[in-house]
Amino acid sequence: MKLCRYGDVGKEKPGLIDNNGNIRDLSFLMDDIDHQTLDRKCLDAIRQLDPENLELIDKSVRIGAPIATPSKFIAIGLNYRDHAQEAGMPIPQEPVVFFKSPGSICGPHDDIFIPPHSSQLDWEAELGIIIGKQAKFIPQEQAFDYIAGYCVVNDISERTFQFQSSQWDKGKSFDTFGPLGPYLVTADEITDPQNLRIWLEVNGQVRQDSHTRQMIFPVAEIVAYLSRYMTLNPGDIIATGTPPGVAMGMKPAPVWLKEGDVLSTHIEGIGELKQRLVKYPG
Amino acid sequence: MKLCRYGDVGKEKPGLIDNNGNIRDLSFLMDDIDHQTLDRKCLDAIRQLDPENLELIDKSVRIGAPIATPSKFIAIGLNYRDHAQEAGMPIPQEPVVFFKSPGSICGPHDDIFIPPHSSQLDWEAELGIIIGKQAKFIPQEQAFDYIAGYCVVNDISERTFQFQSSQWDKGKSFDTFGPLGPYLVTADEITDPQNLRIWLEVNGQVRQDSHTRQMIFPVAEIVAYLSRYMTLNPGDIIATGTPPGVAMGMKPAPVWLKEGDVLSTHIEGIGELKQRLVKYPG
Repeated sequence: MKLCRYGDVGKEKPGLIDNNGNIRDLSFLMDDIDHQTLDRKCLDAIRQLDPENLELIDKSVRIGAPIATPSKFIAIGLNYRDHAQEAGMPIPQEPVVFFKSPGSICGPHDDIFIPPHSSQLDWEAELGIIIGKQAKFIPQEQAFDYIAGYCVVNDISERTFQFQSSQWDKGKSFDTFGPLGPYLVTADEITDPQNLRIWLEVNGQVRQDSHTRQMIFPVAEIVAYLSRYMTLNPGDIIATGTPPGVAMGMKPAPVWLKEGDVLSTHIEGIGELKQRLVKYPG
Repeated sequence: MKLCRYGDVGKEKPGLIDNNGNIRDLSFLMDDIDHQTLDRKCLDAIRQLDPENLELIDKSVRIGAPIATPSKFIAIGLNYRDHAQEAGMPIPQEPVVFFKSPGSICGPHDDIFIPPHSSQLDWEAELGIIIGKQAKFIPQEQAFDYIAGYCVVNDISERTFQFQSSQWDKGKSFDTFGPLGPYLVTADEITDPQNLRIWLEVNGQVRQDSHTRQMIFPVAEIVAYLSRYMTLNPGDIIATGTPPGVAMGMKPAPVWLKEGDVLSTHIEGIGELKQRLVKYPG
């Protein structure tokens, strides 16, 4: 089952993607797709519906991020062996955990803003986990019980901001630096989250092309691990790290993102984020 | 004006502290003290009230954090010159920015949990800024227009978790690692946030004793700086860094927090957090 949120920024309504890829309205059933509506009971109620009976939404509507206002937007750094190498960083012995501002979240086709003081804007295609149930000290074997679904994330990173100090969060948190989508694909549809091709194109040219089996710490381990250090809440997003092929690693020199570039971020079985780079309009 | 939230965890109601230090109920006026109720208009409406006419709340009630569910809990690292030295870190040229999980927030007298796998639990007394108005790219001269008020923060830190990787957030985010309070003191009551004594006691022994004039980056600069890297929202908390005297810096060896310790965190004109260290009950 694929869930989405459609409508203008800040006014999104919940929707279901039918078998033809059309959006069907769910707002008669729930106000939003958020921490209150991700539990199994609510998802099961949606499963009982016949999409054909739900209002069809015009295809031209804006699609928002598939989850509203998470309490946390967690990210795992250097979780693909080759990416750690291209970044010139040691292979981590435990997950490297940092946060993005939830305010960085935007929809899968929204423009990505180039901050006025940016000089090294980069991409990071990532598999996103969406938590479905509060998790504290859970065993790895039960981790999948706590996952509502998955989405594509691009962990947009401004490298001068990121590396100005030892702490990365500042370079990961500008408005639009956290596109999510295109849908929340419920966990039952992803038989094995470690068996998905993940790739990214800039202006149609493939820059990242890898596979989630290359993760150093797999999905279940990440969820169990994090739950030992902080309470995970329904609706929380975890970006699970990026494979090699970011601008920062390009030889002989990085080609940073610039105005007009089109960024496509794909994960097999989940979908595509497709976005244009624009000057910050603020 | 001093605002608080009183009642059981997750069910807090808004309150006003009267001139005798008693809590007066505000729940007839607003549901909570949160991002929706921190604007000037709402604060001015509270100012018009005569506290004597408001319901007096029993003193035995639990006090919660003075702000509900911020979108972000930002912290500034190494913002007191001497603390950077005791931590063996270089004096930062720009603010070092990281995040704490909003789930770490607790009330000013709540117990602080010692994680079962903790071995180096430490304190950090800090002045907390509470944002009152959305801020993007604001000039430093206008920064105070965006501040609703201040509170005391203890940025509780588990040093083995914090330094397991390069990124600190994981060691700052366990449940109860972010006590706030005792009140939100509105900005008009703090004539100069750089002129406040800040101190901390462990079991009655003074461990930190400094002054906010020692900050490397003062309050106004921090707010303006952050607003260039992420949108600040009403209700967001910014912990502005800690002075010297943390356990990590003790000679000849750190004396980490342990079960039964009593931690008192004070800021002149704002108040005190007083909390006991307990085993994690989970």
